[in-house]
Amino acid sequence: MTPTPFLDRVTDTADLRQMTDAALAGVAADVRNSVIESVAVTGGHLGSSLGVVELAVAIHAVFDTPRDKLVWDVGHQCYPHKILTGRRDRMLTLRQEGGLSGFTKRSESVFDPFGAAHSSTSISAALGFAVGRDLGMDTGDAIAVIGDGAISAGMAYEAMNNAGAEGRRLFVILNDNEMSIAPPVGAMSKYLSSLYAGPLGQMHRMAEGFEAALPGPLRDHARRARQLVTGVAAGGQGSLFEALGFSYIGPIDGHDLTQLLPVLRAARTRATGPVLIHVCTVKGKGYAPAETASDRGHGVGKFDPATGVQAKGKPAPKSYTQVFGEALLGEATRDPRVVAVTAAMPGGTGVDIMQARFPGRVFDVGIAEQHGVTFAAGMAASGLRPFAAIYSTFLQRGYDQIVHDVALQNLPVRFAIDRAGLVGQDGATHAGAFDVGFLTALPNMVVMAAGDAAELQHMVRTAADHDAGPIAFRYPRGAGDAVTLPERGEIIAIGKGRVLVEGSDVAILSFGAHLGECRRACALMTAQGVTPTLADARFAKPLDRDLIRQLLRHHKALICVEQGSRGGFGAMVLHDLANDGLLDGRCQVRTMTLPDRYIDQASPEAMYAEAGLTAVDIAATALEAAGLRMKPVMGLA
Amino acid sequence: MTPTPFLDRVTDTADLRQMTDAALAGVAADVRNSVIESVAVTGGHLGSSLGVVELAVAIHAVFDTPRDKLVWDVGHQCYPHKILTGRRDRMLTLRQEGGLSGFTKRSESVFDPFGAAHSSTSISAALGFAVGRDLGMDTGDAIAVIGDGAISAGMAYEAMNNAGAEGRRLFVILNDNEMSIAPPVGAMSKYLSSLYAGPLGQMHRMAEGFEAALPGPLRDHARRARQLVTGVAAGGQGSLFEALGFSYIGPIDGHDLTQLLPVLRAARTRATGPVLIHVCTVKGKGYAPAETASDRGHGVGKFDPATGVQAKGKPAPKSYTQVFGEALLGEATRDPRVVAVTAAMPGGTGVDIMQARFPGRVFDVGIAEQHGVTFAAGMAASGLRPFAAIYSTFLQRGYDQIVHDVALQNLPVRFAIDRAGLVGQDGATHAGAFDVGFLTALPNMVVMAAGDAAELQHMVRTAADHDAGPIAFRYPRGAGDAVTLPERGEIIAIGKGRVLVEGSDVAILSFGAHLGECRRACALMTAQGVTPTLADARFAKPLDRDLIRQLLRHHKALICVEQGSRGGFGAMVLHDLANDGLLDGRCQVRTMTLPDRYIDQASPEAMYAEAGLTAVDIAATALEAAGLRMKPVMGLA
Repeated sequence: MTPTPFLDRVTDTADLRQMTDAALAGVAADVRNSVIESVAVTGGHLGSSLGVVELAVAIHAVFDTPRDKLVWDVGHQCYPHKILTGRRDRMLTLRQEGGLSGFTKRSESVFDPFGAAHSSTSISAALGFAVGRDLGMDTGDAIAVIGDGAISAGMAYEAMNNAGAEGRRLFVILNDNEMSIAPPVGAMSKYLSSLYAGPLGQMHRMAEGFEAALPGPLRDHARRARQLVTGVAAGGQGSLFEALGFSYIGPIDGHDLTQLLPVLRAARTRATGPVLIHVCTVKGKGYAPAETASDRGHGVGKFDPATGVQAKGKPAPKSYTQVFGEALLGEATRDPRVVAVTAAMPGGTGVDIMQARFPGRVFDVGIAEQHGVTFAAGMAASGLRPFAAIYSTFLQRGYDQIVHDVALQNLPVRFAIDRAGLVGQDGATHAGAFDVGFLTALPNMVVMAAGDAAELQHMVRTAADHDAGPIAFRYPRGAGDAVTLPERGEIIAIGKGRVLVEGSDVAILSFGAHLGECRRACALMTAQGVTPTLADARFAKPLDRDLIRQLLRHHKALICVEQGSRGGFGAMVLHDLANDGLLDGRCQVRTMTLPDRYIDQASPEAMYAEAGLTAVDIAATALEAAGLRMKPVMGLA
Repeated sequence: MTPTPFLDRVTDTADLRQMTDAALAGVAADVRNSVIESVAVTGGHLGSSLGVVELAVAIHAVFDTPRDKLVWDVGHQCYPHKILTGRRDRMLTLRQEGGLSGFTKRSESVFDPFGAAHSSTSISAALGFAVGRDLGMDTGDAIAVIGDGAISAGMAYEAMNNAGAEGRRLFVILNDNEMSIAPPVGAMSKYLSSLYAGPLGQMHRMAEGFEAALPGPLRDHARRARQLVTGVAAGGQGSLFEALGFSYIGPIDGHDLTQLLPVLRAARTRATGPVLIHVCTVKGKGYAPAETASDRGHGVGKFDPATGVQAKGKPAPKSYTQVFGEALLGEATRDPRVVAVTAAMPGGTGVDIMQARFPGRVFDVGIAEQHGVTFAAGMAASGLRPFAAIYSTFLQRGYDQIVHDVALQNLPVRFAIDRAGLVGQDGATHAGAFDVGFLTALPNMVVMAAGDAAELQHMVRTAADHDAGPIAFRYPRGAGDAVTLPERGEIIAIGKGRVLVEGSDVAILSFGAHLGECRRACALMTAQGVTPTLADARFAKPLDRDLIRQLLRHHKALICVEQGSRGGFGAMVLHDLANDGLLDGRCQVRTMTLPDRYIDQASPEAMYAEAGLTAVDIAATALEAAGLRMKPVMGLA
């Protein structure tokens, strides 16, 4: 480990406020080394964290944290913050089961007053704290740190619009690294670039009134810069934020503490209303392998800190994401009406595979799920065949648009829902738990889930072919059990499931990617001398009512299994059977869903074990429901 | 009826494109009279429609509708458009059962290419059509008309950000009347006002390149104006939209066809990219009773066209909204930590009652549900006790924020959910159908529904008192059955329902405001010699499991009734009973929910009849489930 003499002197953020500026620079260097060395072991969001090392040191050195409330937007850049706020000795547990979260989290530290993981929430939360302060709550100032990608989301704009009108003292630090997860898109991004066309290290503009609090040379420089900018105002530089009621300061070099510290101190001393401080940083800063990577080391696995070379994982089977991306490309190749929408996640969703071939038919709308969904609806209304590829957890951002613009109008938007179910290291904030429930409730909507990768291929083709209305299909992170993939998927009949194993005692009805686990549960039961039937529902809506009735008639128990919360597939089965008077006890029905609590990060397998959804859990539930005794066999607890 | 000689010549919008500008002015005058005379009979959104009479005439006279796609944001201002597009003879059916929708609607006319009712979707949809046009679909230009309130929503900003970057030919007409439903709020609103500080009728700014297409005098005027503005650019006027990549034209007088027509023609001739045309209008224009009303005649009942005096309805019992507003004020008076958030609906939600007394503790965030929810979460984290008062249908806009910022962090935000269930004249787009399902799925969330107005009082107080985590309570539009209202509500036990009538044959378990209808169902059954039990569940989460088991044990049938979709209260009951193995047929369970289809506007009673949720339906379901014969009595079909 590299020695960290300056950081070793920091046990509380108050220590930072006693240090000289030179010592703070030493702390920053030590923090950078600590981040590199711990992420080398754990993997994680390296690039973003390296980009805010000086910023984290400067904020804690200037503001009175934790009384002042610091809200990191998204929170994936929080490793320097965690190191500075008492969590240094646990950094090697990052994103592991029982360890530190990869994001900020209220339950983890008083220095995390508002947790995050989804983008663009920080300004809203900070404004909430500012109001609390003004209404007498025991809280200090509020500071939001938000990236250039995150600030382009509608939610951040809503918050700025409201904060500007409220006029309360509030600090928004725009961390502009021209690089969210993917290269930035949108007009806001172009606009921000125009603000620092000149060489960095010059402060172009500082709202009048803040200058007086700066030390001499910096003050003169800022004054000249402001006069210069005011004189060259034709482009209206800075005025977008000012139009929204913020004082604008910047852009300043976010890696230069000799700029950061005096500017933050001046802002803290003088601010009476909302202030936007525009800080430019470099993602991956100070670590050559990250700075030179195409994604600036956004999310990395374990690596050798000396070289940055990442450890090779074992060769994985093709991920669901990749299977989707290739199947989408196949449909796009055959049909010029197929288009795709992503909200700033072309790589994560796999639409980059189609984008490479058909760049004019893949639309990255930025972090803008609301717009993305309705934009897709507009394209569908024009006759195109849009796929909206959005993670389950982020689809929650576009829910009203799904209800009001897509389902109500019965427009054929195809929702490709990746990261359904539990997702592993990203933890509870990224769980795809609720989509089946919130989609099956909607008239006109067809809801599918892929039991394996070949099923996903079928569903991509089925969706492409389905012009009658909206259709959604969900699939998990990672790769499922190895299956043979056909050249092209087949069109499956809407509302028809399939029986995989015909048995007689109990029936397992799987919806989605827990099919493999259900198969293992059947194997366990077979080993017990029980004869299970295994069926893949394929559809939560419309239900295969014939199949369900057949299973009900011929078995002692029917177990519905899904990777989602209550109110989804199992609920639809229960509604259907109850209202036909079929729940008469001759066949006992059980629903196995995610439990009614949030599940912290761990491996997906460990998370599903915590959720009570292992093969053993399924087999035990089935046998209990059927009134069958379990034999005391190894492996069945 | 006032004669309408010019309008009588219009059978298709193509006729408008053959008319002289003077004749178009005559058409506009005729349309205005038609709007006033039909809304006098039907009631409806008078003010907004009167504000866009000239705009509707001008757009159809300049653009090639319906091949060009015209999307009205929200759509409540569409009456002139409906009159001009073949629906004139059905205007007296507006918002009535079987009649014209109060909004634009795809199924109603080819001139409504994208329906609306919720705000701020039009730019996204129009961009979708523009892409369709560019990718070879059979569609022309795309025009979005959006108000100054609607454009301040994050979704509209996301769409502008994307459209500006896409650079496609697209027309956005900003209809700026400084007046959404309530007086406008937010920094954007202030910004827009600054754009037309001078007298109207002067075009302040027109993007270069459009001027050449104007007729002589107007061209010279525009050129002078642009040079003037460019010279006085210190404030960066116009640059907000230009920063987002749009050409900006305006502001122009939206009631002056001699400005509107040439400007739209110039824009149509010259546009190569996205254009924002800033049009200033007066809500209620041309009808003195509307122009002088404080809400500019936003939504009116039937009235006398000569005087504008609205017909007095019969004196109604106190609405749920008013009961909520007064109860909230009561809690706010007792506890300075109680604050409230509304998204541009202070009057609709009843928080205006608290606002009048405590203006500094009620926050109108504008049309910004995403921000509003997380802002409330931030206030809760600071120690305040926020009520987020949002209609069920609009809460869909803040769903991810409820999941990620409120429920996951277990922050005590109180959700006051008005307009739950079917809402009458506003129809399917405003139905509060899905909230119970999308909220009960969330760990930590408490979900209540008020059986009557006194219950609502209890729930307001219970919510104020509940600091353990998030809590929601829903209640419908209008007034329920008359009940005695206490001075102040009582704190009710979390997760405890109540039995109202003890019987023995069948049990009706009501969740929410269908309690009155359930009571009538019980009366019908009693008249049949059947002895029903009636219980009010109060909670969908946590369920009163003891009560449910007790009902199950002692009755032949248990009927769960709610004003919401499948996947809500009834689903939670079924999950709970199924997984305890209690669905054995000795007591038959049924769930009565909204059906799996959208229900068009009518009276709420007619809509619930269409939904199969009348007292007769409930009694018939209960008797059938219990295996009891219905006697042929009058009124039981």
